[in-house]
Amino acid sequence: MENLRTINVALLGVGTVGGGVYKLIQRQASELPHKINANLEVKKILVRDTSKDRPGIPKEILTDSFEDIINDESIDIVVEVTGGIDPARERIARALQAGKSVVTANKDLIAVHGGELLDEAAKAGRDLRFEAAVAGGIPIIRPFKECLAGNNITEVMGIVNGTTNYILTKMDEDGMDFDEALALATELGYAEADPTADIEGYDAGRKVAIMASLAFNSRVVFSDVNVEGITKITAQDIEFARNFGKVIKLLGITRNSEEGIEASVHPILIDKTHPLAAVRESFNAVFVHGDAVDDAMFYGRGAGEFPTASAVMGDIIEESRNIMMGCTGRIGCSCYKTIPIKPASEVESKFFLRMEVPDRAGVLAGISNIFGEHNISITQVVQTPSVDGIANLVIMTDDVRQKNFDDAIAKLEALDSVNEINSIIRVY
Amino acid sequence: MENLRTINVALLGVGTVGGGVYKLIQRQASELPHKINANLEVKKILVRDTSKDRPGIPKEILTDSFEDIINDESIDIVVEVTGGIDPARERIARALQAGKSVVTANKDLIAVHGGELLDEAAKAGRDLRFEAAVAGGIPIIRPFKECLAGNNITEVMGIVNGTTNYILTKMDEDGMDFDEALALATELGYAEADPTADIEGYDAGRKVAIMASLAFNSRVVFSDVNVEGITKITAQDIEFARNFGKVIKLLGITRNSEEGIEASVHPILIDKTHPLAAVRESFNAVFVHGDAVDDAMFYGRGAGEFPTASAVMGDIIEESRNIMMGCTGRIGCSCYKTIPIKPASEVESKFFLRMEVPDRAGVLAGISNIFGEHNISITQVVQTPSVDGIANLVIMTDDVRQKNFDDAIAKLEALDSVNEINSIIRVY
Repeated sequence: MENLRTINVALLGVGTVGGGVYKLIQRQASELPHKINANLEVKKILVRDTSKDRPGIPKEILTDSFEDIINDESIDIVVEVTGGIDPARERIARALQAGKSVVTANKDLIAVHGGELLDEAAKAGRDLRFEAAVAGGIPIIRPFKECLAGNNITEVMGIVNGTTNYILTKMDEDGMDFDEALALATELGYAEADPTADIEGYDAGRKVAIMASLAFNSRVVFSDVNVEGITKITAQDIEFARNFGKVIKLLGITRNSEEGIEASVHPILIDKTHPLAAVRESFNAVFVHGDAVDDAMFYGRGAGEFPTASAVMGDIIEESRNIMMGCTGRIGCSCYKTIPIKPASEVESKFFLRMEVPDRAGVLAGISNIFGEHNISITQVVQTPSVDGIANLVIMTDDVRQKNFDDAIAKLEALDSVNEINSIIRVY
Repeated sequence: MENLRTINVALLGVGTVGGGVYKLIQRQASELPHKINANLEVKKILVRDTSKDRPGIPKEILTDSFEDIINDESIDIVVEVTGGIDPARERIARALQAGKSVVTANKDLIAVHGGELLDEAAKAGRDLRFEAAVAGGIPIIRPFKECLAGNNITEVMGIVNGTTNYILTKMDEDGMDFDEALALATELGYAEADPTADIEGYDAGRKVAIMASLAFNSRVVFSDVNVEGITKITAQDIEFARNFGKVIKLLGITRNSEEGIEASVHPILIDKTHPLAAVRESFNAVFVHGDAVDDAMFYGRGAGEFPTASAVMGDIIEESRNIMMGCTGRIGCSCYKTIPIKPASEVESKFFLRMEVPDRAGVLAGISNIFGEHNISITQVVQTPSVDGIANLVIMTDDVRQKNFDDAIAKLEALDSVNEINSIIRVY
């Protein structure tokens, strides 16, 4: 619409997510004036190679110089969608210092340097928004900062990595083993050429750090998160889990208790009736427990061009409203407490253990004794019929401190009557 | 904290939800200064009887005069939690005209008079917030207005009535019939003494009207919603649904298409693998499809003292931020379009039909012919073995316009070879 102000946006990067953001801004051109009382225009895009042909994007808005953007006083919002720590960290800080608001999808950066960048935003009286950094298109940052702000949140638990959830779904529903499911995920583009960050749980760990910081109003960084991936999960584990009425999911869990904040990523057995158990394929979901709201869950696509661009676009729209109303800095950093991180050795969990034992009398008694000595209650035991004199023994424990559990495992491994411990998986 | 401004709140009503809000404000007293940069105080509460003893609430803040509140210039936010159309409608309008912001949980009112009250808010430069009016504690209004604002939303589908979801869950999981499940729901306090608004779908219909208005940026009111309840659903329908791999849920559905907006509440068969199928007992969930975000779902408690108070509190906190930053009116009414409502007779659905037929040759042919004449494709047929010469015939159709379907049903009912049509239920 004419006679309206224009909010000018610069994109740093125009890959998958940046391309999606560019397209959404064009697609929403006639709607945005009603939503933000302004027009929205992509004025500059930072790329490495300005000569490369990018269908649909006019060459004259491309630049290979970040200084071009920082020195353009007409640019209101800088959208960082390049990823990685450097140079994104410095660029975001400089954009804020130059009085621009920043929207980013960069979980690696926010999970480590979120605090210092939010401080820069506060100093400049601008905003740093990062809804797309956790669970892609699913609104989760804003629910924590706004909708659920009247709660004392005690637990956040999420499936926040689509690649691993896709792999576990294929293992569960189609009986694939891990390598087969990973190969399929790679073929379909759900897994990257180097899938390490996904399958080892690092990607989920970064999102847990960000969510914990927001949920508990205390800064949690990636290195505070105890991370384990899904590479050791076998088709057999999944089958045993099913017999217990459970499925295995890679869950990021963070809890706030009197002894501090726990933050971890682990494969975990959860009940089939739990809403997270119904989250299939590459979908993500975040489950929240608060003292007022009780249980809530947010479900959707955690990655992909348009789902991620949807979250970035929501941030751009909200920031445009702040700019139009002169209220940037309206909600700043919400980490106003300093809660200690609970050491991993003190965290309590229930466990599922699968081991190979000789099929003879007294074996279970020996194992039970060790558990008893370490104050570990066994809640269920299943022994499969022996093949060649070897039986599969599956044990589920009650809640046990990690340290006690590790001590018991060390003793079990030394036992003659335990051939091999095949699997140790947590149980929710 | 001292030296901070105080945001003063008045509650209209202190029943279940109002009581929860009052308690949450006390519980969050030390947190709120960090969240809103102000203290928050309940300065007045409007009640019918000021002499009644209300544990935990000081008598001196009670008043039986709305004028007391409207004339108190120190009151910044009026929280309406009495429910019903009148006198809430006039009170909210007057509070806005007096320059106060308003937070309400009143779905009955917003579903009918939301538009005019949002106009009052705009005229006054204040805000009218109603996150608690749809799906209790689940954030859904704010996701539409903010997080998903970069989307063209095409479909919203929700389980937005906890009472009926509880009844259907008990019928499905415990094999209860409708009356038995309703009695249990009443005993447990999930159903009111007069359950009509819940079991006939009116309550869900009001929420659908509000969600449709937000999702499609065009005003939809309760009378635009085509509403059907669950009173005709039988244990037998649920069993047949299960055999088709489906469950029956009371779904509010609204869609935006070229021919206009559809808005309805119906019992519907959905696949067991659909995320809404996993929403059990009194939980609510809203499923959204947008062109960018793809599928997203918001799950949680749709009612209850603290879940509803959680949503009201989120609104109070957000409004306090607007007041502190001088940006009330930041997001106004989002109904900037006028999209027609598609007539119910033009809406397309798939159907599940269960009927009793005499067990003799030619019956299915006669029925199939009628469907064929009305352009209705049959996708599945199951006939149960006959008892006393009567068989149960279950038919699933492909998408069919309501008008064609109604015409076909009228002809089926006139057929000699159809003893009785027991059930007609939509299929997603």
